Amino acid sequence: MPLDEGLRAALNPRSVAVIGASENPNKVGGRPIHFLSKFGFKGAVYPINPTRPEIQGYKAYPDLASLPEAPELVVVAIPGEAGIQAIDACGERGVKVCVVMASGFGETGEAGLEAQRAMVARARARGMRIVGPNSQGLANFATGAVANFATMFIEAPPADGPVGIVSQSGATSLVPYSLLRGRGIGVRYVCATGNDSDLTAIELAQAMVADPDIKLLLIYLEGMTDAPRLAELAAAARARDLPILALKAGRTAAGAQAARSHTGSLAGEDRVIDAFLRRHGIWRASDMHDWCAAAELYLKGWRPEGRRIVAISNSGASCVMAADRATELGLPLGRFQAETVEGLKGVLPGFATTTNPIDVTAALLSNSRLFSDILPIVGRDPAADLFFIAIPVAGAGYDVAAFARDTAQFMADTGKPVALGVPQPNIAAIFAEAGIPTYANETTAMRALAQLAAHTALMRTALPTMPAAAPVNLPAGSTPFLNEADSLALLAAQGMPVVPHRMCRTVAEARAAFAELGGPVAVKACSADVPHKSEHGLVALGLADADAVAAAFEGQMAALAAMGAAAEGVIVAAMVKGRRELVLGARLDPMVGPAIMVGDGGKYVEALGDVAILVPPFSAAEVVDALMGLRIAPILKGTRGEPALDLAAYADAAVRLGALMQAAGGRIASVDLNPVMVGAAGEPTAIVDALVERA
Amino acid sequence: MPLDEGLRAALNPRSVAVIGASENPNKVGGRPIHFLSKFGFKGAVYPINPTRPEIQGYKAYPDLASLPEAPELVVVAIPGEAGIQAIDACGERGVKVCVVMASGFGETGEAGLEAQRAMVARARARGMRIVGPNSQGLANFATGAVANFATMFIEAPPADGPVGIVSQSGATSLVPYSLLRGRGIGVRYVCATGNDSDLTAIELAQAMVADPDIKLLLIYLEGMTDAPRLAELAAAARARDLPILALKAGRTAAGAQAARSHTGSLAGEDRVIDAFLRRHGIWRASDMHDWCAAAELYLKGWRPEGRRIVAISNSGASCVMAADRATELGLPLGRFQAETVEGLKGVLPGFATTTNPIDVTAALLSNSRLFSDILPIVGRDPAADLFFIAIPVAGAGYDVAAFARDTAQFMADTGKPVALGVPQPNIAAIFAEAGIPTYANETTAMRALAQLAAHTALMRTALPTMPAAAPVNLPAGSTPFLNEADSLALLAAQGMPVVPHRMCRTVAEARAAFAELGGPVAVKACSADVPHKSEHGLVALGLADADAVAAAFEGQMAALAAMGAAAEGVIVAAMVKGRRELVLGARLDPMVGPAIMVGDGGKYVEALGDVAILVPPFSAAEVVDALMGLRIAPILKGTRGEPALDLAAYADAAVRLGALMQAAGGRIASVDLNPVMVGAAGEPTAIVDALVERA
Repeated sequence: MPLDEGLRAALNPRSVAVIGASENPNKVGGRPIHFLSKFGFKGAVYPINPTRPEIQGYKAYPDLASLPEAPELVVVAIPGEAGIQAIDACGERGVKVCVVMASGFGETGEAGLEAQRAMVARARARGMRIVGPNSQGLANFATGAVANFATMFIEAPPADGPVGIVSQSGATSLVPYSLLRGRGIGVRYVCATGNDSDLTAIELAQAMVADPDIKLLLIYLEGMTDAPRLAELAAAARARDLPILALKAGRTAAGAQAARSHTGSLAGEDRVIDAFLRRHGIWRASDMHDWCAAAELYLKGWRPEGRRIVAISNSGASCVMAADRATELGLPLGRFQAETVEGLKGVLPGFATTTNPIDVTAALLSNSRLFSDILPIVGRDPAADLFFIAIPVAGAGYDVAAFARDTAQFMADTGKPVALGVPQPNIAAIFAEAGIPTYANETTAMRALAQLAAHTALMRTALPTMPAAAPVNLPAGSTPFLNEADSLALLAAQGMPVVPHRMCRTVAEARAAFAELGGPVAVKACSADVPHKSEHGLVALGLADADAVAAAFEGQMAALAAMGAAAEGVIVAAMVKGRRELVLGARLDPMVGPAIMVGDGGKYVEALGDVAILVPPFSAAEVVDALMGLRIAPILKGTRGEPALDLAAYADAAVRLGALMQAAGGRIASVDLNPVMVGAAGEPTAIVDALVERA
Repeated sequence: MPLDEGLRAALNPRSVAVIGASENPNKVGGRPIHFLSKFGFKGAVYPINPTRPEIQGYKAYPDLASLPEAPELVVVAIPGEAGIQAIDACGERGVKVCVVMASGFGETGEAGLEAQRAMVARARARGMRIVGPNSQGLANFATGAVANFATMFIEAPPADGPVGIVSQSGATSLVPYSLLRGRGIGVRYVCATGNDSDLTAIELAQAMVADPDIKLLLIYLEGMTDAPRLAELAAAARARDLPILALKAGRTAAGAQAARSHTGSLAGEDRVIDAFLRRHGIWRASDMHDWCAAAELYLKGWRPEGRRIVAISNSGASCVMAADRATELGLPLGRFQAETVEGLKGVLPGFATTTNPIDVTAALLSNSRLFSDILPIVGRDPAADLFFIAIPVAGAGYDVAAFARDTAQFMADTGKPVALGVPQPNIAAIFAEAGIPTYANETTAMRALAQLAAHTALMRTALPTMPAAAPVNLPAGSTPFLNEADSLALLAAQGMPVVPHRMCRTVAEARAAFAELGGPVAVKACSADVPHKSEHGLVALGLADADAVAAAFEGQMAALAAMGAAAEGVIVAAMVKGRRELVLGARLDPMVGPAIMVGDGGKYVEALGDVAILVPPFSAAEVVDALMGLRIAPILKGTRGEPALDLAAYADAAVRLGALMQAAGGRIASVDLNPVMVGAAGEPTAIVDALVERA
């Protein structure tokens, strides 16, 4: 797919003008000129400033009109009304993309947002794209097109490389840049879109995915307004094995509040965003350091097949702590085969351990061949997907250069991921020099390995196809909720297992339903006006004779009338006994779209919150996996002599609910099914209570 | 309390000999000589080596006997049988403490442990203490008494200071040393006790607490064999406001396994150790970096009164992430009073935020007085206990020196804790130079502040007094468990609320009990041979007439007889209806002693594991606090229109159970009370099921 011309010009402009150009390279209007010159931009550079004939060595122009051509990219470095006028002028002059650095728009409230929207609309009408406002700018270190005022490019000199960084925030585009540069990793793109008003961070990321030299993509988001495009981006990246690492802030209420005043972003429900990112194979980092910690491992091209880790150290304590950490991170410490143990016994001193983790002991001080002896032996063991080596202490007397050489050789021979924990900076430098990913903090090293393994598995999970939903026919009406009969009918039409029931509008119908269903029944008032019946005492359970059913009908109809609610009838339903009450829910998330909730049900569903979120598309097997991650998992698997629950029908219902929400195309705001009765093998699964909310 | 002479000599010897002294400063027997010389030890140094007249400039001696005096401390740097003989010779010569560096003892298994025990016994018989074996050595940088072979003291030059480090592991004594030295913090003591066979890490820590210059103590433990002494140590430290930071490895099964082969330590149950450390005001770190991260904050003498945090940044994204992190860490973002907001409006640009977090925006680039303007305003606000300042980007054009000066001034003026997040090393150095705690990672900075606040609160919690227990009379017998009647009687004797019940040995007694209790009853077989009755169908619930009770009696007695179990009788108990089934348990932990478990009960207590551990002494209020940290807390507080539960009687029972376990003096291995029925205010609390296990 060819890129939009504005997008192409944003990352790779042929000419750049700066409105508000300054001679001072430390001013917002001076920096881009300084950088274009310093980083060797080959295209035309047009400083615009009516007061000077020349700026930083470039011929200056009094205004846009006097330029010899329409510049492809214009940096607008002047604030306020004059800035807005300049942007409009750019649109008229045929500029392709405008980078707006001024603040004071969408992030300040409704009026600013209005001005921002109008500015974007005028630009789009003239075929121009806008980056910003409130943007730090763009940078391409392959071409030197650095339309950016970042101090960081002076502090940490750039080098072109395989990483693209795109962010709504300026500072948050620069911190990962500096952390990666600090580890000697080259970065090609550093882009900050500020208020993300037109040309978004996600679009810029799409352009980066189209660049085959990019092997790792970092993206910072405060808002997530374009989930479908993010899913498209993720699919394109996965198709060429390009990992995307996201940092999404505003995960708490306080953070979301702060995000509104920063980039004017809405936050969305955090766990839905989590599920969405996971679904699309995007890794979510917890902070800026965590975001960059595994970069070297990805860039080695390592994509481990599994999660089994081997830990080696010259400190027994580091072995103990590595074992603890491996357990916490869910990295099994593979058990060595007999051949490996024998091999290790041949090279390690008697008091060293030959199990995993391997404590080579202080013998490392006297034996510089220990690494070259050990590594090939463990590298051949099938128990090893990942290698962690901790050298908490080394220095005078240790042949560190030999260890580094041997480790690098091992990496080359096996192609397996290796991360080192080395707190001493001078020792770490020797390993890093040899191209070995080296971390000051052992925990960080092991977390990076765990991330690589988990993310590789996520990226390789094929997105399932959702089943086709039956046509979704919402009944006419303007009440916020459907009545329960309509709610159940909507689900039944999708093949979901609703409880056997009858909608009864007369007492005769109620008596007939009782006879037909056989055995004790539940009677529930049915009115779209009263979505929460039990709170009003409008549910009668376990009625075992027709007279009781008739009495319940009369009582509930009268009660509805007394409440002033539409007395549409009652539902007479079979009593279904399950072994566990689960919940099944759906929400239309404003950012992400349909999200399905599965988990433990009953009256304490909110209080205990033992639920998981899935974002379509997902499979029934993934529903079961999600349930197995919950606290009730041991109960679902069968505990204390109870049988395991048969989750197949429940999982199938969850998938159908997902398909229903997708097919409803935004017409359904939420679905609450609680309880869904689940039994053991051969026992029924039944949705007992259903409430559907219109969007 | 005066120190044991061996302990005094370990930390502060007047003379040091090295058996197996080497001319080569990179050998185990050469390093201590090298360090004693290099670090200016003023006492006598006696290298012992029969083959040389002089070693590293010191006169050498062929053996102990030829020394002019009995040295106070001897380093034994030779392994194997010769080493053991040398240690014995030290004992005979009147040496006060021996530092044994050789491995191959308790960490290798039973035979090694036996040899180690015998060696220690011989030493103690002669009045000598042993540090090690498997020890890296001791170091005192105030006196230069460095009986240690650590390479790290060459790599990271020492400076005397207010920190003491004591560890069972050598490497784990040195990593924190190097991390602290890397931050310019002086360290006085670095001690590694290896197998901890005689003079323990905890004893050395007690000696450090007795040194008034020590202001922070770091301790690494693999095993925890002497909990009472650790409690004593903690009390002495708290009494003089000395924080103790512990790293306790072996928290998982895999880690515990690795610990056994490292220092031969047993791990104990991790959550019990957690509870023990918390109870005694000891902070538990998660890894070596986390262990050292807050050191500077403690050493400033900061002891915050509360947890409310103010965050300030020149990056909006850092404000958003700080808000997220504050929420995750339980640090409320205090709301500014009107005066503060007004004050901030006066100094910040229009587009900056004057709420908390404060986004000063890129305006920092152009206004070098921003810090000096803002800080005094927020410093006066009562919402501020802790300050976090993030400067993710600065450099050319920023007056960083002024920000550092202003921040240091603010610290001096307010005495309030401040931590900075500054990822750029050159910028961080400017702040660090000004004495401001500065972290590369914003998360680390905020976690350090959270730790300081939480640990200060822990240290200031007075240990409650446990109520006196009634005499604990265990019935005679050799069965592992008491029968239920005896179990209930033991609890009732402590004033705990057991269910109304009668032990019935005849059917007539059972009928009488039914009549006496009134209303439906439970009938449960009572036999010390059958601790888990319901698994054998030996519990009948809700019996509402005397004949049914009689039938249950006959049936259960017959069933017991058929099982070959002692048919002691049945318990007839009132049926108590509670609103929630809680659990109450006690265990005699092999490391820590009595530990009490409180939490959600019922048949899924193990499956759901929603419980907390308390270690005596604790108060009823602390029991309620612990329950409020569980997932069922919303249910306990009352949800969905249900009343809050009255937890007073339950909490009191938990305290009495703790007192009972203490009074039992190790005779009771465990107590399982499940369910304990708990109701709302005015409703009864009753222990329905009780099982006491003998130790």
